[in-house]
Amino acid sequence: MKHVAVILAGCGFLDGSEIRESVLTLLALDSEGAKYKIFAPDKDQHHVIDHLKGEEVPGASRNVLVESARIARGEIQDLVNLNAEDFDALIIPGGFGVAKNMCSFAFDGSAASIDQQVVAKLQDFKKANKPIGAICIAPALVALSFGEHNPTLTIGSDEGTAAELEKLGAKHQNCATFDCVVDAAHKIVTTPAYMDGGAGIADVYAGISKLVKNVLKLA
Amino acid sequence: MKHVAVILAGCGFLDGSEIRESVLTLLALDSEGAKYKIFAPDKDQHHVIDHLKGEEVPGASRNVLVESARIARGEIQDLVNLNAEDFDALIIPGGFGVAKNMCSFAFDGSAASIDQQVVAKLQDFKKANKPIGAICIAPALVALSFGEHNPTLTIGSDEGTAAELEKLGAKHQNCATFDCVVDAAHKIVTTPAYMDGGAGIADVYAGISKLVKNVLKLA
Repeated sequence: MKHVAVILAGCGFLDGSEIRESVLTLLALDSEGAKYKIFAPDKDQHHVIDHLKGEEVPGASRNVLVESARIARGEIQDLVNLNAEDFDALIIPGGFGVAKNMCSFAFDGSAASIDQQVVAKLQDFKKANKPIGAICIAPALVALSFGEHNPTLTIGSDEGTAAELEKLGAKHQNCATFDCVVDAAHKIVTTPAYMDGGAGIADVYAGISKLVKNVLKLA
Repeated sequence: MKHVAVILAGCGFLDGSEIRESVLTLLALDSEGAKYKIFAPDKDQHHVIDHLKGEEVPGASRNVLVESARIARGEIQDLVNLNAEDFDALIIPGGFGVAKNMCSFAFDGSAASIDQQVVAKLQDFKKANKPIGAICIAPALVALSFGEHNPTLTIGSDEGTAAELEKLGAKHQNCATFDCVVDAAHKIVTTPAYMDGGAGIADVYAGISKLVKNVLKLA
């Protein structure tokens, strides 16, 4: 039985983890008979977005770990406790929270800063030669953490975003929502999911399901 | 093609809609080729729960429609705009929000009050002879709305909760997480989902998937 760590970045696609991608990751893992544990950084979100209006809520503050606990049904740990030795693989669902709370890619592109705790955890898995699955915009974290190894990855087909990842050394490959890109040499698996905002949820699940199967195969 | 209305009650199992049940409902609908639209009441939540600690956040306030918009990715409407004539069926995922924000079942059991807008919408579907799917604790809303018709339903196997539903006139039938109960005469379909807090998400999806298939069959 494979054990997989899942890192969340809040709860809601505009300021946290993409909820559907997170849930579908857990569904795919359980369907494949893998065990998972969920982690999130104990820090304030970059900001809070009203998801009805799509606008920032001035002065509002929410904690990434506390909000991620909604998706995790309370079964979650502070990211500081994630030890790569305890797991066979790592998966990071997408959502703007990944590019706002765990790094500044949403604002700064390839010039983004990255949360040092997050980058250390990714590098632990990389050094241990354990696979990493990155969904939607999460490949930006991969490129920021070790783009110099030139991993092949996808964020779908958005040229502007792809160009930013390539500046970091990554090789971008276009990919449909229902599919995934496997870089077996670097053990990096990526899928676009809601990078296409109009994608259907069944297609998103097809892509995430393929990602999970390939991550487990590489583990 | 069938059109289904989905009503949410917030975002998080302790004070809103159960996130996973909500997402899996959308996945099952899309997988079956059905179209869905999401609605939620524009009102304050009963309270806000810190899902990491499992404790109420004193003084905090969140709006049911705004929080539901996180699951809906912004594609949501005020429940006041739900017109049963526009849909073939209605599905209500569970979570404590259903029993705290849409009625007071979590506190008052069979003596609960029920949001008048919510009960009116349920009765619109019932009068139009259109099927209603209710997940997890949402069957409590069905029993509160028209228990006097004696619908057969399930909330899993919790005897205390089942007894409260039977006081309202419903007939309770025990059911496993991966299964559902179909009352074809009343066009009510129910599945326990996370009424068993230790359920695996793949089993929860199996139950919700069966519920969706049966709701569409009755539509």
